[in-house]
Amino acid sequence: MSGHVRYEVSDHVAVVTLDRPASLNAFTDRMEAGLIECFDRSDADDAVRAVVLTGAGRAFCAGMDLTPGEAGGGTFETWRNSPDAPADTQFELPGHALPLRRDGGGRVVLRIFESLKPVIAAVNGHAVGVGITMTLPCDIRILAEDAKVGFPFTRRGLVPESCSSWFLPRVVPMQQAMEWMLTGRVFDASEALSGGLVRSLHPAGDVLTVALGLAGEIARHAAPVSAALTRRLLWQMLTVDHPMTAHEIETHALNLRGVSADAAEGIAAFLHKREPAFADRVSRHMPPVLPGGRVFTPPAGRRD
Amino acid sequence: MSGHVRYEVSDHVAVVTLDRPASLNAFTDRMEAGLIECFDRSDADDAVRAVVLTGAGRAFCAGMDLTPGEAGGGTFETWRNSPDAPADTQFELPGHALPLRRDGGGRVVLRIFESLKPVIAAVNGHAVGVGITMTLPCDIRILAEDAKVGFPFTRRGLVPESCSSWFLPRVVPMQQAMEWMLTGRVFDASEALSGGLVRSLHPAGDVLTVALGLAGEIARHAAPVSAALTRRLLWQMLTVDHPMTAHEIETHALNLRGVSADAAEGIAAFLHKREPAFADRVSRHMPPVLPGGRVFTPPAGRRD
Amino acid sequence: MSGHVRYEVSDHVAVVTLDRPASLNAFTDRMEAGLIECFDRSDADDAVRAVVLTGAGRAFCAGMDLTPGEAGGGTFETWRNSPDAPADTQFELPGHALPLRRDGGGRVVLRIFESLKPVIAAVNGHAVGVGITMTLPCDIRILAEDAKVGFPFTRRGLVPESCSSWFLPRVVPMQQAMEWMLTGRVFDASEALSGGLVRSLHPAGDVLTVALGLAGEIARHAAPVSAALTRRLLWQMLTVDHPMTAHEIETHALNLRGVSADAAEGIAAFLHKREPAFADRVSRHMPPVLPGGRVFTPPAGRRD
Repeated sequence: MSGHVRYEVSDHVAVVTLDRPASLNAFTDRMEAGLIECFDRSDADDAVRAVVLTGAGRAFCAGMDLTPGEAGGGTFETWRNSPDAPADTQFELPGHALPLRRDGGGRVVLRIFESLKPVIAAVNGHAVGVGITMTLPCDIRILAEDAKVGFPFTRRGLVPESCSSWFLPRVVPMQQAMEWMLTGRVFDASEALSGGLVRSLHPAGDVLTVALGLAGEIARHAAPVSAALTRRLLWQMLTVDHPMTAHEIETHALNLRGVSADAAEGIAAFLHKREPAFADRVSRHMPPVLPGGRVFTPPAGRRD
Repeated sequence: MSGHVRYEVSDHVAVVTLDRPASLNAFTDRMEAGLIECFDRSDADDAVRAVVLTGAGRAFCAGMDLTPGEAGGGTFETWRNSPDAPADTQFELPGHALPLRRDGGGRVVLRIFESLKPVIAAVNGHAVGVGITMTLPCDIRILAEDAKVGFPFTRRGLVPESCSSWFLPRVVPMQQAMEWMLTGRVFDASEALSGGLVRSLHPAGDVLTVALGLAGEIARHAAPVSAALTRRLLWQMLTVDHPMTAHEIETHALNLRGVSADAAEGIAAFLHKREPAFADRVSRHMPPVLPGGRVFTPPAGRRD
Repeated sequence: MSGHVRYEVSDHVAVVTLDRPASLNAFTDRMEAGLIECFDRSDADDAVRAVVLTGAGRAFCAGMDLTPGEAGGGTFETWRNSPDAPADTQFELPGHALPLRRDGGGRVVLRIFESLKPVIAAVNGHAVGVGITMTLPCDIRILAEDAKVGFPFTRRGLVPESCSSWFLPRVVPMQQAMEWMLTGRVFDASEALSGGLVRSLHPAGDVLTVALGLAGEIARHAAPVSAALTRRLLWQMLTVDHPMTAHEIETHALNLRGVSADAAEGIAAFLHKREPAFADRVSRHMPPVLPGGRVFTPPAGRRD
């Protein structure tokens, strides 16, 4: 890992841990790079059937590291002065002398959005700013019952980041998203639950266990290729206007996966009331249901 | 009917009944054709002002018929071997020697999506796989309190079908859609209610009655042309990016319907506190608010 | 004001009041023009940091004024006979001899949708027809516990208006939107709450106070430019397919606002645990994050 993140695999589940507990796992450039690396690894490893994202220590993530001089996003002043940063962290923009520095949280979120493996956020403690927006493209969020959550961007003179202006109103009802974003207030776990942000609340010490339980349920019962296709399809169909597109892609996928070894095994196991043993692997058996072997390609001209 | 489905009209409500009770109404090719035929009939019949979709016997629909040799989707092996199937059940795909067999559940769902009459699903018992995904384009779902529901595609080595990758995250919150789809687990009616999938739970014997009550409320009070336009507009506006498009279409519809006999009657009845008697009929008075006389045409090149 | 609406500013909050209490604030052409004028004023006035929309007297708005001869929409007959109405209230349509009269509620709703200031609806009493649909592009809705609400269009022989066919299914779950729109029934405040339409219920006399409390929280704590950007981004990202677009716009905004005086102040105040004092103003410091200085431009060829 690039650092500031830990990556461990056991029982077919990768656990990605934000690992700066002394700083409440505040988000840094190294953490950004580390997270992207983790999801590249989990996608590439057929032994991994689900990912759990959690934090070391008592917080999940206190937000972007704003300490001057830290290796974090700092005070944004550094954003002006790094024209020699890696190319994939920058956008060229007509009329701007210097390239724009890409929002690091957004790069992480777009990577999680594209993950082939289901992702469950085990939010073990406070989650503020990028600490909560980075979890929005996760499939399920589990929260500690004593955690505080906040989208404090308006109170810092900033704007929503990590693609949260796109994700939050698609994850919770619009007027809830607006109240949290406009007031910028920090709120309790109970409000996060009633507002639809998280699936369930648990004592902090149980959050990882509950998340691993869900990840394990997927790892044990779901055909890995089916789980990868399902995850990608549900998120990608949010980007698609008409259900006819879903019909075309699902038809294509069913024609290819319907005659697969996994389908034969899954249906036989169902008919004989036994547990299936799926042999197909994501690295080799993902159907090219759209050109380029990807489930869905971003709009023309998009940068990945 | 093509069979495997019953169609009956009374009191301005069409009841479409999945009718293979000995097989728990498992979905077959004949059922697919029969369902499409039913919605063609209900659209064409001005006496029908709402549709209720239900199942015969104790189940609603146990999913696709997977019994080898049955007239159902079978083991998908048959999908490879029917290049001479009806053209509208197939897609041509560049690079594929044989045409793809279109997902039958998807064809049904797209037909319900386009229905001119409001559709209420009276889910009288277990609804699994296509048994539940076929209800997603219905406007309202009523569920039996002892029914089980499941989206078991990952457990069969398959993928979401019936356009459910598009509909489910638009009907229930994303993390709920993901948990049901990724785990593939069967769950109780109470979870279907708390997760937002269904409107209300009732004893199995009352489900059809409650659905007929709602359908009757619409049949008695709503102008049929208004109900048809309303249904189509709400679903179609989910496929449209900008509210300005809604403004244009609504403006067009208001200009045409605002001077209709129905509007004169509806407003007069309101002002005089009496029940309106609407005379306009869907077959003759639907305004051509988009070219071709349809409320909305699918994107260019789409197949119906 | 053009009349039928009152506009007052105090403590950085503009209160826009529907002001025809003797007619239960029924919607008229003058009210339409007045509302658009109010939101033009609140956008242009840097002293205004949030807007509250409410009604005078015991109702919020009983719907379009249907009284024949009134200055309202009347019986729609007048729609046919005003080819000399102001150009921005009309659409030309190929094949139609006379221009279409634009839906007035839709013009108001599109104006609120574009508001630079957060908008909270204090629905102090009954809200029916355009009385409730005009609140859908507001960010938060507060409702009187004894108010009745209804979308009665099907019962009047009409169709959804004020872009509600686009907004309602994005504000509440689809099957709830469909039940309210198809039945056209009037329902209680408790159903509006459980159905997700409003944030909270309060005694009628407290509704404005609660709304002013929320508006005040935003006015006191949120940087005005941040609040304006946040509001526009969340609504506009509902019109955008792919999260990559959000990433590009957020990146652009972060690069410009990250080095602003407001961000320096907001971060310093946070680090020193004091209240920030934001100096940047919406009239001068909104970043041109899309061409034309607007946050987002509507699709080519759209009319504003």
